[in-house]
Amino acid sequence: MIESKYDLHALFNPKTVAVIGASSVPGKVGHTILHNMIQAEYQGTLIPVNPKSDTILGLPVTKSINDLPVGLDLAVLTIPKQFVVQALEQLAEIKTRSAIIITAGFKEVGHEGYKLEQQVAEICTKHHIALIGPNCLGMINIGGKVNASFASGKPLPGSIAFFSQSGALCSSILDWALGENVGFSKFISLGNKAVLSESHMLEYLGNDPETKVVLGYIENITAGEEFIRTARKVTARKPVIMVKSGTTSAGAKAASSHTGAIAGSDNAYSAAFNQAGVIRARSISTLFNLAQAFSLQPLPKGPNLAIVTNAGGPGIMAADACERSALNMASLSPTTVSKLKEVLPPYASLYNPIDIAGDANAQAFGSSLDIVLRDENIHAVLVMLTPTSTAADDLENITQAIIDVAKTTDKPVFPCFMGKKRISDGQKMLQEAGLPCYIFPEPAIESLEAMYKYHEWQNKAEPVIPEIQRDRDRAAAVISGTIARGADEIVEFQAQEILQAYNLPVPRTGLARTSDDAVTFAEDIGYPVVLKIASPQISHKSDVGGVKVGLKDADAVRDAFMDITSRAQRMRPEAMITGCLVQEMAPKGAKEIIIGFKRDDQFGPLIMFGLGGIYVEVLKDIAFRLAPLSREDAHNIIREIRSYMLLKGVRGERSVDFAAIENILLIMSRLSLDFPEIYEAEFNPVLVNKDKAVVADVRISLHT
Amino acid sequence: MIESKYDLHALFNPKTVAVIGASSVPGKVGHTILHNMIQAEYQGTLIPVNPKSDTILGLPVTKSINDLPVGLDLAVLTIPKQFVVQALEQLAEIKTRSAIIITAGFKEVGHEGYKLEQQVAEICTKHHIALIGPNCLGMINIGGKVNASFASGKPLPGSIAFFSQSGALCSSILDWALGENVGFSKFISLGNKAVLSESHMLEYLGNDPETKVVLGYIENITAGEEFIRTARKVTARKPVIMVKSGTTSAGAKAASSHTGAIAGSDNAYSAAFNQAGVIRARSISTLFNLAQAFSLQPLPKGPNLAIVTNAGGPGIMAADACERSALNMASLSPTTVSKLKEVLPPYASLYNPIDIAGDANAQAFGSSLDIVLRDENIHAVLVMLTPTSTAADDLENITQAIIDVAKTTDKPVFPCFMGKKRISDGQKMLQEAGLPCYIFPEPAIESLEAMYKYHEWQNKAEPVIPEIQRDRDRAAAVISGTIARGADEIVEFQAQEILQAYNLPVPRTGLARTSDDAVTFAEDIGYPVVLKIASPQISHKSDVGGVKVGLKDADAVRDAFMDITSRAQRMRPEAMITGCLVQEMAPKGAKEIIIGFKRDDQFGPLIMFGLGGIYVEVLKDIAFRLAPLSREDAHNIIREIRSYMLLKGVRGERSVDFAAIENILLIMSRLSLDFPEIYEAEFNPVLVNKDKAVVADVRISLHT
Repeated sequence: MIESKYDLHALFNPKTVAVIGASSVPGKVGHTILHNMIQAEYQGTLIPVNPKSDTILGLPVTKSINDLPVGLDLAVLTIPKQFVVQALEQLAEIKTRSAIIITAGFKEVGHEGYKLEQQVAEICTKHHIALIGPNCLGMINIGGKVNASFASGKPLPGSIAFFSQSGALCSSILDWALGENVGFSKFISLGNKAVLSESHMLEYLGNDPETKVVLGYIENITAGEEFIRTARKVTARKPVIMVKSGTTSAGAKAASSHTGAIAGSDNAYSAAFNQAGVIRARSISTLFNLAQAFSLQPLPKGPNLAIVTNAGGPGIMAADACERSALNMASLSPTTVSKLKEVLPPYASLYNPIDIAGDANAQAFGSSLDIVLRDENIHAVLVMLTPTSTAADDLENITQAIIDVAKTTDKPVFPCFMGKKRISDGQKMLQEAGLPCYIFPEPAIESLEAMYKYHEWQNKAEPVIPEIQRDRDRAAAVISGTIARGADEIVEFQAQEILQAYNLPVPRTGLARTSDDAVTFAEDIGYPVVLKIASPQISHKSDVGGVKVGLKDADAVRDAFMDITSRAQRMRPEAMITGCLVQEMAPKGAKEIIIGFKRDDQFGPLIMFGLGGIYVEVLKDIAFRLAPLSREDAHNIIREIRSYMLLKGVRGERSVDFAAIENILLIMSRLSLDFPEIYEAEFNPVLVNKDKAVVADVRISLHT
Repeated sequence: MIESKYDLHALFNPKTVAVIGASSVPGKVGHTILHNMIQAEYQGTLIPVNPKSDTILGLPVTKSINDLPVGLDLAVLTIPKQFVVQALEQLAEIKTRSAIIITAGFKEVGHEGYKLEQQVAEICTKHHIALIGPNCLGMINIGGKVNASFASGKPLPGSIAFFSQSGALCSSILDWALGENVGFSKFISLGNKAVLSESHMLEYLGNDPETKVVLGYIENITAGEEFIRTARKVTARKPVIMVKSGTTSAGAKAASSHTGAIAGSDNAYSAAFNQAGVIRARSISTLFNLAQAFSLQPLPKGPNLAIVTNAGGPGIMAADACERSALNMASLSPTTVSKLKEVLPPYASLYNPIDIAGDANAQAFGSSLDIVLRDENIHAVLVMLTPTSTAADDLENITQAIIDVAKTTDKPVFPCFMGKKRISDGQKMLQEAGLPCYIFPEPAIESLEAMYKYHEWQNKAEPVIPEIQRDRDRAAAVISGTIARGADEIVEFQAQEILQAYNLPVPRTGLARTSDDAVTFAEDIGYPVVLKIASPQISHKSDVGGVKVGLKDADAVRDAFMDITSRAQRMRPEAMITGCLVQEMAPKGAKEIIIGFKRDDQFGPLIMFGLGGIYVEVLKDIAFRLAPLSREDAHNIIREIRSYMLLKGVRGERSVDFAAIENILLIMSRLSLDFPEIYEAEFNPVLVNKDKAVVADVRISLHT
């Protein structure tokens, strides 16, 4: 749960709003905000605050913050930045519940601004003031008749909420939406997020009955784990669609020079969105296509799409787009085909795409759409119209027929009217009837695919984070010992302790201080064995010739021990040589995998999985999840890599022991959460064959 | 060169046009075409042909084709299909130069229609009638004032030519373009392509001075090699952008049920477009975005993009899109930075994206754009405007400033005005000034990327197809011998003949009929050696235990000989065992690659390249090119696979002998063209290390 100390109800539905820095000069921000509040037909008490005026826009002016009513719901600040802190202190004194700081010049301009913003945040946190900004455009609650922003243009009412870290993007989106007749429930410019962040907005909008779809544009996320927790709750109820920019190095560079946002790893963001059920849009146009689709149509209950079209070519393009997506081209049931035969001419094509022919009229469109929607194997329909002469002449009736049939079904119907001039009346009718309307099939199918995936998300089982049996104290002792020594890496023998404490499968191992010791261990383990140099100073053992495998008898072990230790001494004279590790050989026919994690600044431990060697290093074939991993995550992360088939077995080979890998992944996840001191850890390689998996080597790095 | 026997000038610029099947009934196709010709202000002689009328639309009617003037330039046929063949014969008699058959009911409806279409094609071919159709919408030459189509809506004039295999798509595009103010030079519905195909259109439009950009939508290509030859000539002069639909199995299924188009392999299409310099668009909206960009702006002379923006967030999104593309975010020169400092406020950000701040006016936009365009390291500029209050108020001046600066440069300037309602006047001004205008940055950058790649294409060296030394007769003898025996596969020993005839590097090999023979050969080659079963009936040698490697001495060779031959006899009693091949061992540290080809129905031999084993089979990491391969193709195909780094060498390994691989690729290309009898061939594996490459095994399949 997010802290509930902030009163977001007062912020979004204030009974009294004070505009600190209200101005009588048109064009000034302090004027525009007041004007926007009046334009919005605000129903509460609106108080301009300005020491020098008496009335502004017909409203009586209050000279000082001290004169404002105690328990003020919302203060909007547009005063110069040097007066902001003092104003906030005064607002705190009169127990103001929420505030919006429009003023810029804070974190985004460098160190001085950063310090000023810290003061702002401290006052608000201490006095529980729900603050939006600073450096923002403001906030609009369309249904609540509050427009506490200096945005130009009045948003249309609708069921889409939008929050954005970029104020300029708010202006663009608002202007674009007005041109496209897209309406909103709430419209929020987050600014620098000194107090309220995307997580607070998600929490509030998730509970907002006026909001059916939540959209967000962010450049960074302030508190990663809180974000995931909150988003997961919201996405269980309604779709959350977000753009995260600054995903590439150039973009991230621009982002950090722009709002001082520290860009986390994009892999971590992807994992976070994925694990929280947030739909990630890769561009603003996709964001809005998805928003329209989600707000206007029901979710498909399965992946099977039927395409009804009056033109072949466009139908093919739609089929191509469908195949490239997670959707399937539905097979029509024999009943559907025979019913279609009754209503369509003989030259119609009764496969999917169903080409009802260029001379199809309202009757043909309506009845074929109806028949297809009644086929229980079909989960969604794309109805395509090109302006053939029949279609253009009969446009109104055809559109009405589509609207009428769409009303009778709980399956999504996506009209795609390909054209502009002659079909604009049809597009308008669809819009008024609350159906989405597309010009080209690709965005329609992209939207439907996202809706299908979201349906799957909403219907998946509650994730189970299994309990892991472990001796946490034993591992803690190793870690604190290492820290006490001032080292930042736990070398193998100590790391083995941790593996054992966490019941990880390891090759049987003994630390031999002499060559006789080594032979004793080898005979206990059984030949052949592996010998590895043991020294706290040597972590890259192969580099000093410190590993010998396949030692078949006592002589070989003795020779190897002498050879390894003397060579290590020669090559690394400063190193303290403890002896050699004697280890069981790798499982027969084993494949190498890597399981690791790295702690992300925003989201915590980012678990990675991949095949060893070139697959991770050269082909970058890696899958990611944030800890904690659920059983399902552990299952899926393995199946996400391109080279998964190599583990599943090719050419009649048997599959590796997936349960064993999943077990190691879950333990790694637990370990990463148990010890924040660990910055990075890697089991590399983990050797896995059809019977078992063992952690053959390990590296653990601590924060330096 | 395409056959020049067809008079496309007469088709596109006819002095006399007869409409066969002209009708006085509004709504009938034969009426609409006549009406469209008149609406287009056609300047030549227009003759309606109809046995039953006297005048139609005020024009005197000719009763019979026989009464038409000899040497008629263009006949447009809209008569029922059963009369088409007879009408064409009559048109041939009066030496008609070109025709358009609007009528449907040919190849697209099945076998009967297919036969009818063949008759149509025969007449036209015989009498050199340049035919468009059947089953099409017609053709429009906007500049020439010819509208021989039943399309509704009159296209605007412009410099984009569009041809389409789908008539319905023509209607859609025309309607959409009218709504978007996009103009055309020529507009052609190809229909079933009984005579004239996309290649003829490319040839004509390539030479058409009114056409700057050629667009096409196709479902299949009729003559692949001709298409590549023609397209390559055209793309050297002007951009060709095409959508190929039916790329997925579902799409292809739809395509073949729709126009009877046989879909070739999509890999072959991609290779063909790539090798012909044709830009492949994946959707119609991309097709038109690219068309606008190419027709309105000069090509960038390099990949370096600068972004000038009045808003941070949108700038980041554009930088992300740039990084994902083949373009680079340009570094600004110190001179540029210091000049920008002079004209911009201190809070502007002088990195790229250059954030000129929300209060930027016309002066700030104009001067910063000008400064950036003068930086010689910058090849293109994206100017982004969001409707901040300054930008919205000063919109006209800002837009004018951008237009003025853009006129002074030969570098592409792409404005992106993010919004719709308040900035529509600016968008209109840009449109009128001939600048493209984008709402979101992603399509602008996608277009610029395509333009940059096209610039690279136009400036690359002429491809060199090297001469290959070979003994073609020797290989031909093997192939004809195999065909004579009724076999459809050339087994290893015969295939070795072909390899030698083509001077391919092979391991030293001898065919030993006895174990003594085998030892003699082995001693000549030098130990260790490989033994392989030699039998014309056994192609999968490993399946019968027919391969033994690493034989170190005479005894091992003798044992292996007996073992292999007796096992093969036991397991495949029907097989004739010739003996064993004795072969040189693989080069030390060699990697396995596969070089093969498969003959594509439309495009001929499709050469493939990949790493052996799982890389091709499981990871599908394969690159393709159509034969003949140029030196450049052979160079690039190797570098296109994801696992290329493994050949280049990882972890300090030395690179493999790329020249040797390229040589084998070029020989494979030559071989594939020398023998159309070969359906499929594969060198698998080719073993390559830092010093050399050898073809270790080969399979060649003939057409059955």
